[in-house]
Amino acid sequence: MIDVNSPLNDPELRRRAVSAAAGRLPFDILLINGSVADVATGEIRPADVGLVGALIASVHPPGTRADAGTILDLSGKIITPGLIDAHMHIESSMVTPRIYAQTVVPQGTTTVCWDPHEIGNVSGLDGVRWAINATKGLPLRILVEAPSCVPSAPGLERSGAVFDAGAMEEMLSWPEVIGVAEVMDMRGVVAGSDRMEGIVNAGLASGKLVCGHARNLCGSHLQAFMAAGIESDHELTSKADILEKLRAGMTLELRVSHENILPDAIEAFKELACVPQTVTLCTDDIFPDDLLRRGGMIHHLRLLVSLGMCPMYALRCATLNAAMRIERRDLGLVAAGRRADLVVFNNLTDFTPQEVFASGIHVASNGTLLAALPAELPGLPLNTVRRSPVTPNDFRISVPHARKALIRTVRTPRTTQWAEREMDVLNGSLVLPDETALMAVFNRYGENTPPGLGILEGWGDWSATIGTTILHDSHNLAVFGRNPEDMALVANTLIESGGGMAVARDGRIVALLPLPVCGLLSTETPENVARQFASVRDAAATATTWDGPTSMIKLVTGASLACNPGPHVTDLGITDGMTGEIVTDMVLETC
Amino acid sequence: MIDVNSPLNDPELRRRAVSAAAGRLPFDILLINGSVADVATGEIRPADVGLVGALIASVHPPGTRADAGTILDLSGKIITPGLIDAHMHIESSMVTPRIYAQTVVPQGTTTVCWDPHEIGNVSGLDGVRWAINATKGLPLRILVEAPSCVPSAPGLERSGAVFDAGAMEEMLSWPEVIGVAEVMDMRGVVAGSDRMEGIVNAGLASGKLVCGHARNLCGSHLQAFMAAGIESDHELTSKADILEKLRAGMTLELRVSHENILPDAIEAFKELACVPQTVTLCTDDIFPDDLLRRGGMIHHLRLLVSLGMCPMYALRCATLNAAMRIERRDLGLVAAGRRADLVVFNNLTDFTPQEVFASGIHVASNGTLLAALPAELPGLPLNTVRRSPVTPNDFRISVPHARKALIRTVRTPRTTQWAEREMDVLNGSLVLPDETALMAVFNRYGENTPPGLGILEGWGDWSATIGTTILHDSHNLAVFGRNPEDMALVANTLIESGGGMAVARDGRIVALLPLPVCGLLSTETPENVARQFASVRDAAATATTWDGPTSMIKLVTGASLACNPGPHVTDLGITDGMTGEIVTDMVLETC
Repeated sequence: MIDVNSPLNDPELRRRAVSAAAGRLPFDILLINGSVADVATGEIRPADVGLVGALIASVHPPGTRADAGTILDLSGKIITPGLIDAHMHIESSMVTPRIYAQTVVPQGTTTVCWDPHEIGNVSGLDGVRWAINATKGLPLRILVEAPSCVPSAPGLERSGAVFDAGAMEEMLSWPEVIGVAEVMDMRGVVAGSDRMEGIVNAGLASGKLVCGHARNLCGSHLQAFMAAGIESDHELTSKADILEKLRAGMTLELRVSHENILPDAIEAFKELACVPQTVTLCTDDIFPDDLLRRGGMIHHLRLLVSLGMCPMYALRCATLNAAMRIERRDLGLVAAGRRADLVVFNNLTDFTPQEVFASGIHVASNGTLLAALPAELPGLPLNTVRRSPVTPNDFRISVPHARKALIRTVRTPRTTQWAEREMDVLNGSLVLPDETALMAVFNRYGENTPPGLGILEGWGDWSATIGTTILHDSHNLAVFGRNPEDMALVANTLIESGGGMAVARDGRIVALLPLPVCGLLSTETPENVARQFASVRDAAATATTWDGPTSMIKLVTGASLACNPGPHVTDLGITDGMTGEIVTDMVLETC
Repeated sequence: MIDVNSPLNDPELRRRAVSAAAGRLPFDILLINGSVADVATGEIRPADVGLVGALIASVHPPGTRADAGTILDLSGKIITPGLIDAHMHIESSMVTPRIYAQTVVPQGTTTVCWDPHEIGNVSGLDGVRWAINATKGLPLRILVEAPSCVPSAPGLERSGAVFDAGAMEEMLSWPEVIGVAEVMDMRGVVAGSDRMEGIVNAGLASGKLVCGHARNLCGSHLQAFMAAGIESDHELTSKADILEKLRAGMTLELRVSHENILPDAIEAFKELACVPQTVTLCTDDIFPDDLLRRGGMIHHLRLLVSLGMCPMYALRCATLNAAMRIERRDLGLVAAGRRADLVVFNNLTDFTPQEVFASGIHVASNGTLLAALPAELPGLPLNTVRRSPVTPNDFRISVPHARKALIRTVRTPRTTQWAEREMDVLNGSLVLPDETALMAVFNRYGENTPPGLGILEGWGDWSATIGTTILHDSHNLAVFGRNPEDMALVANTLIESGGGMAVARDGRIVALLPLPVCGLLSTETPENVARQFASVRDAAATATTWDGPTSMIKLVTGASLACNPGPHVTDLGITDGMTGEIVTDMVLETC
């Protein structure tokens, strides 16, 4: 089994590397006729690189050595350090770590910092333990961050787990865990809530990283967030936001999942006349088909360069800056004594990966994984949708003895607002007006309680039903639609599948992505997951007439984010993250 | 007692800092009307800085807050992070850590990485333990590195201790120790000697820093040195050397003790069109009067800027780059949540320090230490010159029954070479020719053996006698001169003083610097040590007609460096670091 975390303090390994560098032994692998992208000095220099075991043993002038077990002629291509993804969620790609590695390693990503936040919300510490174990033996170095906000909106929803400071301490005591993952409860931190204090202080006490999520934080709130000990952010929204956070001394994890921010970042760097060494790159959330088609970190580099960023600066952010941020002195440079995580690119414009080495192992070539993948780890967290079948009646809002009712609604997706609307009542049930839909959220953690219900306005005109068990952040089972029969069909299909996403139209399922692992991940091949996901995404995109800037899939999976201000439907009802209110009866008046 | 290492994970401290940043509590200290040198973005920006306990709680727009226990009006001056000295030996300044702190803290140095190599050579693990304890309660953060080469030339000299891999492991297990100090036995590392493998591997196994000393290492030897796991170097000798090491991926500790290298460094940065983030600054070795008169890190910054380096780049090397190198995320930036190590400079050209804060404590103002110094730690390692009195006869070279003798000599200081010379014999004793001197090295670790003796050529014409117990690296007692009576006087004076440096002329001591702690350090005031040292230095400078580029003090203290190639006199005789030879009888032939 491959071990990309093999220890570098093995005396025999070091002895062999020293001997090879000094010319007393041949290298295991010698890369010749390439150039090294030196992200420390900013130079591209012809150099040969000799590997011994997991180590870079020597970077030396071209042609000065020819003794090696294997010699690879790179014909002028560029050797860079392996790419480091400074913050991401494998769950967003809806595959297991094994499949994720299979996809990104041939793209040149050799290290990722994974916040298994979604798995934590569903399966708790057992889920995080599984996540860690599922990273072993892969050709990708997966460093795990301890999810800090499980649940992200305590009291406003029920998820599969509650992580308190004690749970954080436990996770932080595990050697595979490199720190506290993005602290999202910004208000809690700034207000000094006991819960968030305990969680952040557990991180500080561990000496490990304390990473942030500082969306729209600025001014004194940003300073307070940082005073708590939180060091980084990836929720960047504008050039001004980027500049304020860099000037505040934050480490930025500039993310490609929200690529509209990248031009702003480049403008910010121009204003500073430098790219600070406190800038790292990350993917955060990449959908399965995007990951397969465009790539993760590789797509990031290509975009930044196409937008005008100096390739060497972009590469430095993705390698040395990240390595220094995560305090991995063995990573981030093509240098003797460091770990042989290397990518060979055709050039630094296309960034087409030719060869990838992880800990000295030739793991990919020309886009194909060479390394054997271990079998999927037994003990997958399956059967996590613990919910009895539902019926169409679960989707009928009963208003007895009335003709009309004044209803509290949730208006517009994303930045949601409370609204009110008069609706007709027919045979004791509410009649949904045009351009509204019912959102029903079923607890899927063993509580067979009635769903939390809310009526959505402002999403366009609905013609289909969408269901998902990817529902940030508690990942209950949500169904969106107008037709009780179709909504029950979608819900029961997802319950039977152990989770996933589905779209129904006219009494039948038209697209289905089963996600049996935690109700979040598939174990299918990347191609199958990408295809199934694309079919759901496309079907969802036509479920309403919405044509806003955010895709329907992002809208539905984000519709239950109770940690945000404004109304959001959770399994408990319509909640408000600002006021803490939970509305379980949406009927204000009847007549 | 001051604790500049007070923990930052104290929940109450963080709670107060968050509350103050958010505006719910006043700051403890508020710095107003200054500008912040932002070494991350490279900007100088007007900003106020609020401190709470040991923390920076907020960096905010000028004038937006006025609530604080103490408000300090900086009138346009510049706030920078505290300076970090990335590698140094307090012993070179011949004072205790307490006195060292007293001197450099008002200069803006708030953190030093100390390799107590000389103390280790004299007093072993007990000495290093004392060194660590002697750093407690000081206004200076002193991070200790574990001396890696005790002795530096095993078998060629006897010092006060032998540190094997086990000793390294023990030191590295102490929380105050941040890594392996400069690995000097380059040949041992490159050749794969068991001893050096054990020492370096102990460092790798600890996960702490592994620092280097790579003088004149280049090509495959440099690669092999790094392949062993050694990460840094400060022994820079030329622009080409600097470029090769930066390109090799080394962290540089650019040192001011050898300031002739600084223009080369600046030329190297020009060639790269950047100052890599792998460049840190250090002082390494500063004499007591230089430290007092010109300063340590502050002198470094001034010199670099006067030589044309951008002040912000120099400052970044001395702060953020160093903090990232030593993996101290609490240091290196003026940013909320970090430790309040701050310097207020008048400007970034003169670098005149106005105020210094260490962990939020106002420790110096206008060059004067404000912080109370603790008493000198009891249990000072005194009485380390364990040697019976010597006599003039110890300095006479007996050559019985001869008129002339052919003698092996040591020619030229610094890069020494073996030579031969015919000398007269009078009354059974060798007569030293003009322009030669006897170098006698007495073991001072309890072995009352006869001294190692050698005759030096090429140092000029001698008119005085010099003695020292600072004698790299074993710190035995060396006496240089031509007059046996004066040489015995100097030796016995130093034995009585418990060590130090002395110069005698015409039968009397003309300059004396007693160094009773380990025979290396004084406990006097910085001014007294500087004055006594200057008197010895001046007297030594006229002891011969030598007028080479290296001072006589540096020549005599370096004359026993048996780890270097060529002949060097140690307590065992004339040794050769290249061949391993020890010559105890310098007489080749007699007639």
